[in-house]
Parts: sequence; C-alpha cells; structure tokens
Amino acid sequence: MGEIGLVDSDGAKLDAALTRIARDVDAVFDAMLPIPDDTRAPLVEAMRYAAMNGGKRVRPLLLVTTAEMLGVGRDPALRAACAVESIHVYSLIHDDLPCMDDDDLRRGKPTTHRRFNEATAVLAGDSLHALAFEILTAGETTSDPFTQAELVRCLATASGMSGMAGGQMMDMVAESSSYDLREITRLQQLKTGALLAASVEMGAILARVPPEGRTSLRAYARDIGLAFQIADDLLDATGDEVAAGKALRKDDEQGKQTFVTLMGVEGARNQAEALINQAVGHLAPFGQDAAVLRALARYIVERDR
Amino acid sequence: MGEIGLVDSDGAKLDAALTRIARDVDAVFDAMLPIPDDTRAPLVEAMRYAAMNGGKRVRPLLLVTTAEMLGVGRDPALRAACAVESIHVYSLIHDDLPCMDDDDLRRGKPTTHRRFNEATAVLAGDSLHALAFEILTAGETTSDPFTQAELVRCLATASGMSGMAGGQMMDMVAESSSYDLREITRLQQLKTGALLAASVEMGAILARVPPEGRTSLRAYARDIGLAFQIADDLLDATGDEVAAGKALRKDDEQGKQTFVTLMGVEGARNQAEALINQAVGHLAPFGQDAAVLRALARYIVERDR
Repeated sequence: MGEIGLVDSDGAKLDAALTRIARDVDAVFDAMLPIPDDTRAPLVEAMRYAAMNGGKRVRPLLLVTTAEMLGVGRDPALRAACAVESIHVYSLIHDDLPCMDDDDLRRGKPTTHRRFNEATAVLAGDSLHALAFEILTAGETTSDPFTQAELVRCLATASGMSGMAGGQMMDMVAESSSYDLREITRLQQLKTGALLAASVEMGAILARVPPEGRTSLRAYARDIGLAFQIADDLLDATGDEVAAGKALRKDDEQGKQTFVTLMGVEGARNQAEALINQAVGHLAPFGQDAAVLRALARYIVERDR
Repeated sequence: MGEIGLVDSDGAKLDAALTRIARDVDAVFDAMLPIPDDTRAPLVEAMRYAAMNGGKRVRPLLLVTTAEMLGVGRDPALRAACAVESIHVYSLIHDDLPCMDDDDLRRGKPTTHRRFNEATAVLAGDSLHALAFEILTAGETTSDPFTQAELVRCLATASGMSGMAGGQMMDMVAESSSYDLREITRLQQLKTGALLAASVEMGAILARVPPEGRTSLRAYARDIGLAFQIADDLLDATGDEVAAGKALRKDDEQGKQTFVTLMGVEGARNQAEALINQAVGHLAPFGQDAAVLRALARYIVERDR
C-alpha cells in the first residue's frame, strides 16, 4: 500500500509517539498492578503478563493523541487509555481460550492460558474488565463525575453485546453463516470498530467536547476501524507469521468470509486506502495538530502485525 | 438454626418481598434483553437464559430494600439491582465453566455452557459484565452523574481483583494451600462478601447517603456476607441436593478448607447465628423500616439452596 505513503515528518512523529505510548502504557499498568502479598498473586501476575505484553497500543495512542490535540493533559489521558487497553487485553485473553480461537501464541509469546492455566486466564480477563471501570471512576483520571460517567457509558457500550462482544459472537457463527459484504462490515464495526471509535471518542470526552462536536472525530474513527479490519484480513491472507508473531491463514482454514474473500486482495487494498483517505479528510478541521492521527490512520493499513 | 427464628410478621414480609423481587428482576432483564434480529441472537439468548434462571435474587433484594428504606423509588433501584445481578450472573457462568468448577447444573437446570456451548457462555458472561456498567450510567437509573460514577466505582471495585474475582482466585488455589480461619474469612469477604456489601451500599448511594452515613449499613452487609458463606459451607456439608438444585459435598471431595472443616458443623452454625444477631443489631437506627433487611439476614442462614 505504498501509494498512500507517509509524509516523512508525520511518519517520524508517529514513530516517536508509538515508542512513547508503549513505554507509558507499560508504566501505568506496572504502577496499577502491584503483586499482592497473598494467594491472589497468580491472578495479578497473569493480568500483568497479558497487559504488559508489547502490544502495538493503537487504542491508547488514539485516545491520548485525540485528548492531547484537544488540550487534555497526558497523565489523565494515559489512565483512560489504559482503561480501553484493559478491555482490549481482556478480550484477547478470552478470544485465545481453547473454547474460542484456541491460540497458543500472542505477540510471539505463549497466550495467557498457555503460560498460566485456563481458569486463571478467564479470571485475569474478568479482572481486567472490571479494572477498566475502576480506572475511569478514579479521581486521578478525572475529578469530574459527569466526565467519569460519560467515559464509562462510552466504554461499556462499545465493549458489550452492542459492541465488541456482540461482534465476536457474530464472528463465531461466521463459519456456519454466509455473510455478505454488508453483514461482514456490520460484524467488524462491532467487533473491532466499536472499541477503536470509543478510543477516539473518550479522548474527546476527556476534553469535555459535547457530543455534537465529536462528529468529525467519530467519522474518522469509523473509517479507520473498518480499514483496520480490512488490513487484518489482508495480513491473515498475505502476511508473514514471524513478523506478525501469531498464526496466520486461519480465516482460510476455517472457511470464513472476510473482506479478502469477498473483495479479493486488490479490492480489499483499494477499499482500505479509500477509507484511510476519507478518514484523513475528516481531520481537516484540526490542521497540523492532527499530524499523529493522520499518520496513525496510514500506519493501521501498512503495519505487518 | 431454629433458635434465631423469624418474627412471624417479618417472615411474611420477606416472603412477599422475595416473590416480588424475583418477578421484577425478570421483568427488567426481559425488557433490557430483546433478542436481536441478527446472528448475535444466541448471545442474547444465553444472557437471558442465565439471567432469568430463577435465582434467589438476594443481591437485588438487598439493594432495593435498602434503597426503598432510604426513600428511593422502586424503578431506579430495580435497575441498579439488575446491574449487581448481572455481575453475579456473569460470575456464575464463568465459575461453572469446565476449566473452573466444571458444573453441569445450576438452579436445577443445565449450566449455560451445557445448554449452549463454552464459547457462547464466556461471551454471555462478558456481555453481562459490560451490561452492568451500561445500566448504571443510563439516565433511567439515575440522571445524576455523581451518583452514576459512585455506583460504577462501588460495583467495579467489588467485582474485580480487590473483590469477587480476587476471592475466586484465592478459592481456586485453596486446594493446594492450607488456609487458616483468618485466611478463609478474607477469601470469603472478597469472593462473596464484597458483592453483597456493594448491594447494600449501592442502595445507600442511590439515596445519596454520604460515605460517613453508610457505616452501620456496611457493618450489616459485612456480617451477613460472612454468614452467607458459612451457610453455603454448611449447605455443602449437610444440605439436600434436590432442594439445593446443584451438586453438593464438593468441598469435601476437593479436600478444601471451609468454615465447616475449620470450625465443625456446630461451631459454624453458632458463628453464623452470632453474625446474624450482630448484623440485625446494626439495623437498630432504622427501626421498623428495616423489617425486610432483618428478615433477609435470617433467611440467608436458614435457606436450603
């Protein structure tokens, strides 16, 4: 997807932002998750193992970048970002379970249930799920209860049956259903798009931007969310397992409909590019301040893992 | 435990309250969980199956009774009660999974993963978990963001690693650890006590009682929470499987330390009675208004399921 290309200065800003967010997210989780001096220790070790596992931190970067662009301080934004990442990480732990995708590797390391055991993995996921909402209602994130409640509402809706978990269910029955492009799009908007969109929206909520002021940011998030999933399908179909750090070609083995099976490799690439260009267009009102969000949109479709 | 006995009029009030809360909780879940017209249908069917499964509704009754005693309307209290019950039900679904307790029966019916499948059960639990926080930040529960945020904070803390999930982890390693009475007490305060205490506290939060005004209600909740677990251990050791609707004698089979193994049947019974008397004492400031809370405390140790 070289045609999209990164403006060099934006790309350099993105590289720096990715390095910094990875370090910062790990530091926040490290501080939030001290190992307790009792038999809960394996639970917290599993939470740390899963949460501090070298992810790309796309969602935290979206949230922190949006929030900083709108004038929010980095520390509260980072805490809210770790709430979103807690939800993302819990979903990865549960998705990897033997009864779900039965994955042994995640980011090149044993999955949580392989490293610990299944029961601990289920509980670590559940605990990270609760942690997200503990974080969002803590005074260190924001002292404004209106903002706390709005953050919780946004994240809970994006992660439950009307969001991520609902999309995951649609994905589970995908093997026995023959989804068309409209249905696959809806599935992915729930499964991946909802949490990515919530990341951007929560940045705006922290900045106390009212709902009507979030329209262009929501449109940006919706477009990159879909492009993100198309890129994932392309990665599964054409990517390199070593670079990706996980098993690929699973969609094909499972006979699943994806953007690639429905549109072909070239069609899917073109669609992802069109979506990214459209997403970048939505950032026009923010001018130079949106450099990292622009670069992040492009990174999403160019990444190899 | 006949010595505690129920004052007849309190007992009649409790019977009526238990019947009514069971009907009301089902009605709220029924309205909240319409089956969607897409492939998420099995997810919502599993959520309904687990949530509308004839539970005792002890937590909802604690919350609604406390809230009504303090002047809160029944409808908002019922919604908050369904948030707590969503957390309780998700924990039952996950606890029953093959990798956890591997239970086939729950309330006399197949457990969720037996009726559906494991993956759907994991997701239904996760979705009920998120639903709890969606409910608490919805305007129909309370329009006051301060109350919304406080409800979320209370429930998230009670359910995560410092509460229910943490206690569940301690319980999982109980077979290989030899806990003493202090450690078993701590385990149960987290595993069961935290959510029961949150139920009472959330009733007071809805009534906008400030933290310092909740001391006696918290003490009541702490005592009945511990008594509840002692009663559970007694039920496991001496109860009737048909009446209980689930497999019993599991603690003994697994060689686990419980209140009964540590204190003996008589010692455990005496301790439960003492705790209930102490709990009822904490309700003195509320006089006749606390009739149902008093009766509920006694019911907790006298129930057979």
